[in-house]
Amino acid sequence: MQKTPIHNLFYNSSYLEKKVRICGWVRTLRSQKTFSFLQINDGSSVESLQVVIEDTFPNYSSLIKELSTGASVQVTGLVVRSQGKRQTVEMQPENIEIIGPCPEDYPLQKKRHSFAYLRSISHLRPRTNTQGACLRMRSMISFAVHQFFQQEGFFHIHTPIITTLDCEGAGEMFRITKDGKDFFGLPAYLTVSGQLEAEICALALSNVYTFGPTFRAENSNTSRHLAEFWMIEPEMAFCELAENMEMAEKFLRYILTYALEKGGKDLAFFSQFIEEGLTEKLEGFLKEPFAKLSYTEAIEILQKAPAKFIYPPKWGHDLQSEHERYL
Amino acid sequence: MQKTPIHNLFYNSSYLEKKVRICGWVRTLRSQKTFSFLQINDGSSVESLQVVIEDTFPNYSSLIKELSTGASVQVTGLVVRSQGKRQTVEMQPENIEIIGPCPEDYPLQKKRHSFAYLRSISHLRPRTNTQGACLRMRSMISFAVHQFFQQEGFFHIHTPIITTLDCEGAGEMFRITKDGKDFFGLPAYLTVSGQLEAEICALALSNVYTFGPTFRAENSNTSRHLAEFWMIEPEMAFCELAENMEMAEKFLRYILTYALEKGGKDLAFFSQFIEEGLTEKLEGFLKEPFAKLSYTEAIEILQKAPAKFIYPPKWGHDLQSEHERYL
Repeated sequence: MQKTPIHNLFYNSSYLEKKVRICGWVRTLRSQKTFSFLQINDGSSVESLQVVIEDTFPNYSSLIKELSTGASVQVTGLVVRSQGKRQTVEMQPENIEIIGPCPEDYPLQKKRHSFAYLRSISHLRPRTNTQGACLRMRSMISFAVHQFFQQEGFFHIHTPIITTLDCEGAGEMFRITKDGKDFFGLPAYLTVSGQLEAEICALALSNVYTFGPTFRAENSNTSRHLAEFWMIEPEMAFCELAENMEMAEKFLRYILTYALEKGGKDLAFFSQFIEEGLTEKLEGFLKEPFAKLSYTEAIEILQKAPAKFIYPPKWGHDLQSEHERYL
Repeated sequence: MQKTPIHNLFYNSSYLEKKVRICGWVRTLRSQKTFSFLQINDGSSVESLQVVIEDTFPNYSSLIKELSTGASVQVTGLVVRSQGKRQTVEMQPENIEIIGPCPEDYPLQKKRHSFAYLRSISHLRPRTNTQGACLRMRSMISFAVHQFFQQEGFFHIHTPIITTLDCEGAGEMFRITKDGKDFFGLPAYLTVSGQLEAEICALALSNVYTFGPTFRAENSNTSRHLAEFWMIEPEMAFCELAENMEMAEKFLRYILTYALEKGGKDLAFFSQFIEEGLTEKLEGFLKEPFAKLSYTEAIEILQKAPAKFIYPPKWGHDLQSEHERYL
């Protein structure tokens, strides 16, 4: 029997009263007098499936000893409506197979672990709710990025990672060598931007975008620049500033709408545990058209602002992050 | 007026007898006694749009002097059925604006240039039919890869490019430094594979894939390993060999079907000019189920093969590229 992702059982009522096979990892086992609640998660959703094991189940007492947190299991059984409040469906098991048992000192227990601790067990970290939700949302939003640009007639181009270009000095570069020597016969670096290649392609294909890893050899731990990050760079030929701004707004609206529509329980999880009110904040962005203002207007607003800036705003100077944040 | 990609004019009959604005680059201008044929390409398609300019057009003689190959232009006009055989629609211009004129020594002329020559003008290369078709097909197929995995319930994970792991010695690695020193306090390299991170994520999310750049510091100019290439790595938990093979076949069928259905004129171009019969070859792959055989069967076939191998096939040894090619 084909295995079914747990996520599908929650969102597709055609599984109700049907027999399915699921595979996943034990989150918790809670034993009552005459039965046990087993929570299984397979990463297809932040939600775990509850399997109710009656004490009449074959080998009940030895089985529940082995069903410890972290064990990988395969369960076949009937999907039924749940009597509990927390979940819509649960499973009545017919067969439970322990694929891989888990020792008692499994480092992920049913409690909130600090991010710092989770870094020390990074091989298990994706099994936590937070990182699982991050990975699922990131996958979903990456796909939305591609979908948006493809719908808009852009071509995805894969620009070189190893390069000799420094892209107008966008940042400090990592150098690449093999056994201490230049491999390509001249100094080579990790790209800081695919912009130049994207511009060349835009001057042939009209609308292109890049979406790939980019690097900065800068010792700055800001939310703006990591040593390695994925960057989206659209380039459009025959396009003026107004159309550019329109496309940027359309893009952000598409991504936010996509995240709100498909984020489901992952987004709800973030909104509840990571940043309270996140969902409302994202919905707020979509309520009104984005404000548009000229550079001169921006400087005027900043100069009148009741805020202390490290760099005083001045016409002719670049806007700093602190200025952009204020605006 | 919004500009329209030229590709749309060929494939959407609702533009017929409508006024549109197009932007692109002049491919050729062919002048007859009383009119000129202008071919404009905007990279949205391998096909160029033909604009028929009568000699009664304002400033006809000075205009056609400026409409040299490579010039960037904007044309508004009526989309009409073409009387010629080579194209379905053409344009009757109302207004022609030269955005950027082009010198006479523009290095891309209307003739077949060698790939070696095109490498020397790589900033203009994407404007050729061959590279344009490559870029469009690559974009389309990359998207198909994401679409396939997302439909199948896989999550796209972005594995690190800078790493200390050598992935079971998959290949020679490039080293990364800043000003001749290790930047992260220990030796760091460019990844040869995201496999280990993908395996970790699969053991939490069940089905994941990577699709990103990968590197080999090997001086081998084969079609298998470049210094830098994009690689797809799916990882599935709770999956046996049979299911794995099934997924691999399903994936290849999806991508080939997608390419055949949406490759259009680009695929036809490859099939005509780059590899004759390519379309039929791809269709051939889809006609029958893929042959499946065990390692032992493969070795038996190779040992009976009427072929000379550099490495004699032997049970217990790895299959070499030459063996895979023969099979």
